[in-house]
Amino acid sequence: MLLNTFLQSGVLLFTASSILFLFSKKQQGSFNTAFIVSFVTLISYFLMWQGGLEIASAAGQPIFWTRWLFYGASCSLLMVEIAKTRKIKGATLAEWIYLTVIVMFTGFLAARTLTSVKWIYFILSSVAYILLVLKVFKARTEETAWIENYIYFGWSVFPLVFLLAPTGFGVISSAIAAGIYLLLDLYTKIIFNVQLKK
Amino acid sequence: MLLNTFLQSGVLLFTASSILFLFSKKQQGSFNTAFIVSFVTLISYFLMWQGGLEIASAAGQPIFWTRWLFYGASCSLLMVEIAKTRKIKGATLAEWIYLTVIVMFTGFLAARTLTSVKWIYFILSSVAYILLVLKVFKARTEETAWIENYIYFGWSVFPLVFLLAPTGFGVISSAIAAGIYLLLDLYTKIIFNVQLKK
Amino acid sequence: MLLNTFLQSGVLLFTASSILFLFSKKQQGSFNTAFIVSFVTLISYFLMWQGGLEIASAAGQPIFWTRWLFYGASCSLLMVEIAKTRKIKGATLAEWIYLTVIVMFTGFLAARTLTSVKWIYFILSSVAYILLVLKVFKARTEETAWIENYIYFGWSVFPLVFLLAPTGFGVISSAIAAGIYLLLDLYTKIIFNVQLKK
Repeated sequence: MLLNTFLQSGVLLFTASSILFLFSKKQQGSFNTAFIVSFVTLISYFLMWQGGLEIASAAGQPIFWTRWLFYGASCSLLMVEIAKTRKIKGATLAEWIYLTVIVMFTGFLAARTLTSVKWIYFILSSVAYILLVLKVFKARTEETAWIENYIYFGWSVFPLVFLLAPTGFGVISSAIAAGIYLLLDLYTKIIFNVQLKK
Repeated sequence: MLLNTFLQSGVLLFTASSILFLFSKKQQGSFNTAFIVSFVTLISYFLMWQGGLEIASAAGQPIFWTRWLFYGASCSLLMVEIAKTRKIKGATLAEWIYLTVIVMFTGFLAARTLTSVKWIYFILSSVAYILLVLKVFKARTEETAWIENYIYFGWSVFPLVFLLAPTGFGVISSAIAAGIYLLLDLYTKIIFNVQLKK
Repeated sequence: MLLNTFLQSGVLLFTASSILFLFSKKQQGSFNTAFIVSFVTLISYFLMWQGGLEIASAAGQPIFWTRWLFYGASCSLLMVEIAKTRKIKGATLAEWIYLTVIVMFTGFLAARTLTSVKWIYFILSSVAYILLVLKVFKARTEETAWIENYIYFGWSVFPLVFLLAPTGFGVISSAIAAGIYLLLDLYTKIIFNVQLKK
């Protein structure tokens, strides 16, 4: 099955990136965020691949709601990394993390809700997401300009896939959605971290 | 239904206060806690209004246990605000937040438990609450004296409502309890924040 | 029943230690971690003793998976204490806490999974645990050498019991496992804290 292949690939690729980041000299600072982000994503993929927690959409497509809870943990760490490149810390960083967790938690509620009520959660999630992006945008510096594209492209495709997948309008299948999410995860969690430490 | 009216009012009022605090100039610091507290409470009310997660008491009254988990998130931020007015930070603030989460988590367990075992959770929650209030009291300053009344009155009515509601002795209905909680939420999460930034 | 006796003893002993640490002058700093660790463990034991959340292994033995989620909270605080004795803070401490939570969360997944898939979670948990111990080891100082034995002996017996108990190979019963866990909890959460503040 295509879906299973994507989830299994996620397990294998994030196992590989966990090992890569763990032993990469460049990644070893006081907090090896690249490794932890990969390790958390590996657990997330393994849980989806193992199955048993997903719910079925009206059209019978599996919805993997656990994904969004794990993003809450991994993307908070990505925020810490981005904040570091811009010398952002303390209360401002705390607000970024809080907003990230709200985006993902309401995303989880939207994925978990099968009735049209899900759109309210989607809107709440989007509001928190837009606020977060605006705040990150306001804190940009010339040196970190290349990160901008990563953020705006890499992150904003997630809600688009959410909309097209069975979690939203159901235009694409859960398998195709899982494939695109996998590419996005590789881009935002592995390529980003490799690029960041160059 | 009265219960639904209260929950829906909560959704509307905290949507309004979220917008108010988001665009209020006075609220914009490095961490707009007033907005996040309102936004988290909005999600909490929406989840209760949507329904489906509440459990029924022996008398058939609905018990909205999710409320207490959301208070864990929102009240931790209120503690951060109070701590700020008293120049409290670091380890002391961390202890306040930890105690707040324990109060709300054991409150959640007390609400979720229908047998008389709930009283043990209620006592554990009360012990943590009393410790928290004593610590906040010890850190009071003359300038922040007006906050005292907010805390002691605003917060201590919550466990009283818990006792009178179907979560406790069942003297009042879930609808009446929801109405009083709504008033308390307005007082401790909106009026408090408006007052604080004056 | 033996199992119930151990769980009840846990409730009583951690109630006693909570009171002890709460009123002990030596424990009162800006963050009374010893008290909070005991209080969280008391809640954990009470929840297990109350029952209703455990799942049954293939051999019909009860598995108390909630234990590992509570360890996530209590052991994070123990890490804060150990970090303090070694002047570790900031990003390094954050990484220790993150790893501790991953160890316990994957431990919870391993305990919750009844099929052989549990071994994958056990391995993921072990990887995070070994990384954590190596990091803590690297940060050791001469003055804190006595803490080493506590950590390596006290902590590493937990996964061994996990392996022998119904969560692993099922060589010992859930009751015996609960007894050993109780001894370990006394050692790592009470005796450790008494020793630490001498």
